[in-house]
Amino acid sequence: MDPILIALVSGLLGLVTAGFMAVYVLKQDEGSKKIREISEAIKEGAEAFLGREYRILAIFVVVVTIILGLVPALGWLVAFAFVFGAISSGLAGYVGMQIAIRANRRTAAAAEKSLNHGLRVSFRGGAVMGMCVVSIGIIGLSVLYFLFNARPDFLFIIPGYGFGASSVAIFARVGGGIYTKAADTGADIVGKVEKGIPEDDPRNAAVIADFVGDNVGDVAGMGADLFESYVDSIIATMALATIAVMSPHLSRGLVPDLATAWWIPMIVAAGGIIASIAGIFMVRVGVKTEMKGLLNALRRGTFAAAILVAIFSFLGILWLKADIGIFWAILAGLVGGVLIGESTNFYTSYVYKPTLKVAESSQTGGATLIISGFANGLMSVMPPVILVVVAILVAYKFADIYGVAIAGIGMLSTLGIQDATDAYGPVADNAGGIVQMAGLPEVIRERTDALDSLGNTTAATGKGFAIGAAGLTSLALLLSYTQAVGINVADVSLLDPLVIAGIFLGAMLPAIFCAMALNAVGKTSFSIVNEVRRQFKEIAGLTEGKEGVKPEYGRCVAICTTASLKQMLLPGLMTIISPVIVGLVLGPVALAGFLIGAIASGLILAIAFANAGGSWDNAKKWVETGAFGGKGSDSHKAAVIGDTVGDPMKDTAGPALNIMIKLMSIIALVLAPVLAGTAGLL
Amino acid sequence: MDPILIALVSGLLGLVTAGFMAVYVLKQDEGSKKIREISEAIKEGAEAFLGREYRILAIFVVVVTIILGLVPALGWLVAFAFVFGAISSGLAGYVGMQIAIRANRRTAAAAEKSLNHGLRVSFRGGAVMGMCVVSIGIIGLSVLYFLFNARPDFLFIIPGYGFGASSVAIFARVGGGIYTKAADTGADIVGKVEKGIPEDDPRNAAVIADFVGDNVGDVAGMGADLFESYVDSIIATMALATIAVMSPHLSRGLVPDLATAWWIPMIVAAGGIIASIAGIFMVRVGVKTEMKGLLNALRRGTFAAAILVAIFSFLGILWLKADIGIFWAILAGLVGGVLIGESTNFYTSYVYKPTLKVAESSQTGGATLIISGFANGLMSVMPPVILVVVAILVAYKFADIYGVAIAGIGMLSTLGIQDATDAYGPVADNAGGIVQMAGLPEVIRERTDALDSLGNTTAATGKGFAIGAAGLTSLALLLSYTQAVGINVADVSLLDPLVIAGIFLGAMLPAIFCAMALNAVGKTSFSIVNEVRRQFKEIAGLTEGKEGVKPEYGRCVAICTTASLKQMLLPGLMTIISPVIVGLVLGPVALAGFLIGAIASGLILAIAFANAGGSWDNAKKWVETGAFGGKGSDSHKAAVIGDTVGDPMKDTAGPALNIMIKLMSIIALVLAPVLAGTAGLL
Repeated sequence: MDPILIALVSGLLGLVTAGFMAVYVLKQDEGSKKIREISEAIKEGAEAFLGREYRILAIFVVVVTIILGLVPALGWLVAFAFVFGAISSGLAGYVGMQIAIRANRRTAAAAEKSLNHGLRVSFRGGAVMGMCVVSIGIIGLSVLYFLFNARPDFLFIIPGYGFGASSVAIFARVGGGIYTKAADTGADIVGKVEKGIPEDDPRNAAVIADFVGDNVGDVAGMGADLFESYVDSIIATMALATIAVMSPHLSRGLVPDLATAWWIPMIVAAGGIIASIAGIFMVRVGVKTEMKGLLNALRRGTFAAAILVAIFSFLGILWLKADIGIFWAILAGLVGGVLIGESTNFYTSYVYKPTLKVAESSQTGGATLIISGFANGLMSVMPPVILVVVAILVAYKFADIYGVAIAGIGMLSTLGIQDATDAYGPVADNAGGIVQMAGLPEVIRERTDALDSLGNTTAATGKGFAIGAAGLTSLALLLSYTQAVGINVADVSLLDPLVIAGIFLGAMLPAIFCAMALNAVGKTSFSIVNEVRRQFKEIAGLTEGKEGVKPEYGRCVAICTTASLKQMLLPGLMTIISPVIVGLVLGPVALAGFLIGAIASGLILAIAFANAGGSWDNAKKWVETGAFGGKGSDSHKAAVIGDTVGDPMKDTAGPALNIMIKLMSIIALVLAPVLAGTAGLL
Repeated sequence: MDPILIALVSGLLGLVTAGFMAVYVLKQDEGSKKIREISEAIKEGAEAFLGREYRILAIFVVVVTIILGLVPALGWLVAFAFVFGAISSGLAGYVGMQIAIRANRRTAAAAEKSLNHGLRVSFRGGAVMGMCVVSIGIIGLSVLYFLFNARPDFLFIIPGYGFGASSVAIFARVGGGIYTKAADTGADIVGKVEKGIPEDDPRNAAVIADFVGDNVGDVAGMGADLFESYVDSIIATMALATIAVMSPHLSRGLVPDLATAWWIPMIVAAGGIIASIAGIFMVRVGVKTEMKGLLNALRRGTFAAAILVAIFSFLGILWLKADIGIFWAILAGLVGGVLIGESTNFYTSYVYKPTLKVAESSQTGGATLIISGFANGLMSVMPPVILVVVAILVAYKFADIYGVAIAGIGMLSTLGIQDATDAYGPVADNAGGIVQMAGLPEVIRERTDALDSLGNTTAATGKGFAIGAAGLTSLALLLSYTQAVGINVADVSLLDPLVIAGIFLGAMLPAIFCAMALNAVGKTSFSIVNEVRRQFKEIAGLTEGKEGVKPEYGRCVAICTTASLKQMLLPGLMTIISPVIVGLVLGPVALAGFLIGAIASGLILAIAFANAGGSWDNAKKWVETGAFGGKGSDSHKAAVIGDTVGDPMKDTAGPALNIMIKLMSIIALVLAPVLAGTAGLL
């Protein structure tokens, strides 16, 4: 049987599973009229945003498609792959969000029954998203394979798909990220800090915008993000295989032929989907299981999936008669990923010392809390970087540079279930908001809070995986680029000033990207704060919560939508244009330096931002459990400042860096035929 | 005449100037008995700290000396150079601080007369430090040259001097930085934020510790820092010259012989000293000049010095019959440095939009202020990095890799006057504190505040120079290292996984270093806060300011001394040991990757930290001028949080990164004979 058929079948199985989960979710009780009303408002806002976002992206995609098609060295097949990748990514995000929106209200209703009911509905809602991402990805790649694998320019067609997926992802992640965090921080600053009213209080004009943000940012944006991580890791390996087989690198005889080198990543990914499905069905909790059992259930599912993937990969390597060294490379990535997840957990969960220390420093105010949280984020860079380095060295030792690429797939192979545990968080978060707004009893809000808090932990772990894998993937893309553009080993010497110039410029870019993203959130939330303040001042009876008096939610939704769509453009376009300019002006060798600089600095900033943010978030939660004076104390106020600072770092700037480094690397690869043989303007 | 004699003479001239300034300062009125009492307490604390610090450093120096002496590939001459460098650095810091301590009280007394008197005394106090740093540096290097230039291992002896200077600098910068910022933030948190009493109020138990910190951190620590920047840039060029003449790199015929390649950096540095002396004497203000004229006077001095250096360098190059391309490289560095200074000013001064935006965001609270200040810091990375890259490319085009090294000297050539404008800030700051504590009239405090505020601007500019030059210097050291260890151009390919592993690990290290430094400040200031709180609670009548009731200042001084000395060790030792471990375990090629990773990431973090901190500091000052509610408003509270967060970033972690990247590069160069021919354990 053609191994790619197995991949295709696994993708279809994944879609069936997603369908099964979706049907389960949709069958659930939709809750009271009030719940449905709120939920409808969220749905409208989210769809309006996504509609406008996709229209802007459509223009971008059309323009890039035409450019790609018209450049002689690239052509219409690359352009086709680009469109196909962009549409696949948009689809994954769209479907995931549609289900999440429907799961929100049902989770709220289910939480009225019990914590356990709430978990089931929200987790299955998240699972739809997880399975859609991996299934659409593997199906899309299988289709591309069948259509074009016999063509000599296959090497440049597949990165086109990744280019499309990554382009959509960077705009969706940044745009959605600005939206969600601006609304969230804006609502919190006026509501929690100034007015002292609870989170998600219906008097707060930004509260619906906040909910909409959860869906367009934390669900749709994250979906596009994970989709590109997944397909890029496979594409990077296939591209490297194409090149490596023609170079002496694979002379060790790792694979019998080029086709096998293409099949392996697809087979490992297929195994990952099957393993994820099995893992998802293992996340079962008894009717009486409470929080602790819940986390254990999730961990059981993900660990089981990891073990299954290892077994499948081993069998796959044997079946394809490839060198067993490739298996060790996969395992290096897999184990590295699991350990990165654990280290993330260590630095961000309040069960461990680092975050407890951050929480402790809230006693001396916001400033010391910020310093210690930021220091914690910077320190947390150590384990992931060392683990990535070890994975690189082990993978290289056993399977050369092909091994480095395939280690990235190993790290991401269980993405299906990882993403499910990740995407259920915002569903639970939204459900909690709906519960609060609908004025349901406190005990139900406590249940959704418990689910949300668990989601924070799994989300942090998921981010760790994604960042580590991004390092490996973009490295593989960089290696493919250098081969494709015809750079010899000796050409990219660290002693070449052009390479050094590239490294410095590359290292600078993630910092500027983060600055833009943080500024965009700051600017938008500033507008939201002023709007919410205005409404409290001008709408009579609103502060007192007079019967029948409601804020104009739509104004905040409109502000967020317009501002975030406007402000996603600059960082996104900068990411896309920079490698083109560096390649054309400083030349292909400087571009290689540029990419490695961006990868190294992007990795550091992404981890530091994600973990500092996670740690402030959980430090606040720890104070809210009653530590250091608990809710309402000065310590709590300090902790809220930390959480607010961390929000755009961990949910807007940080995760977008993952996409950024891969997108720039994939653009370099796509451009390789254009750059080959040029030396830059200088 | 032997060109090195010119260097020696310029150094002696510098010392004469320093002596002249010192005599002027010491002749001034020492002020009232109360002023002298306070000043004596500061002197005692500072000397006690420096005494203990130097004792610890002595142990470290002895141990390293013995190791260097016993390693056969290095030997006792390298060890001697190391001790000599360490002592020179300690001397520069010590003399500078002794004068600064004496200038503090005299500035306080002079400010009683007029703003202008205050400026004269504080600027001349700072000038002693500036001239001492450059003079001791050039004299030390001249002595080494005369003693050893004929020896074949001269190449490894001179870096020994830099190794000694940088080792002392990293401990002095980190130790002093922890001290000053822990005392400062600790005093502010309880005094300004909790108790609402003014800065430097005598009731605050941490106030003397805060003053001591200004002297041991901002004066002695900075002196050691600038000393190593200065000598390392010269050493890097001399080392590279030694190697480059033996390789085809200098086959362009840039210099007639090796000796000329050694002389050029010394002659440029000597020209810089003469230019700085001239510039310092140009900083004259009329009796009636006020603040604006003051800043212009300083700028006139530094610009004049820069133009003079350019002229001197041009003449020097002609005289030594070297290629004129070397002059263009020097100019590239010089112009790049001036522009970096301007860009720093743009991002951190409240005269310009970026910092005004940060100040504006104080209206929505501490969180948005932190986000926007941090974003501003990240954004400010762009001009310096681009300027450094342009300087590298221009210098390389005109004078090959030798040009890259000499561009670093061009950038630092006016350090004498730069340092004078830098070191006068803490003198004025301390004087202001003494004025406050002595209960002198408000108008005098306003004068010292004005001086202090001007000092902030010049300090920020100085940091920009130092960071940019650190990039060029460490790059030159890295290039020297690779040549010394016998790595060929093709050996350090970006496509080698060991190089990539090195880059990732290197990029990680500055982040961890910053985390350690920030944590140390956080931890120590936590102790200070608790101690100051305790004293307010336990000492009857202290809060009310009852006549005769004084806090126990000594307790806070003791806490800061012990804690900062203890906590400087780990980051310092990590910096020294890491390149050794990477070199021995991963091999010399990975070490090259490690260094470039550390340089790139260190550059980014250092600039971002310095400018974010500077911008928060000035945003607070802007609010204090009355903007957004002025002093005491909620905006001001938010701005104080930003200032407190920025303090350890800009004065502890950020500047130490400069030293860190050079120290690691110089260690690699010193170790080159040991590593040559090895391949690492892996």
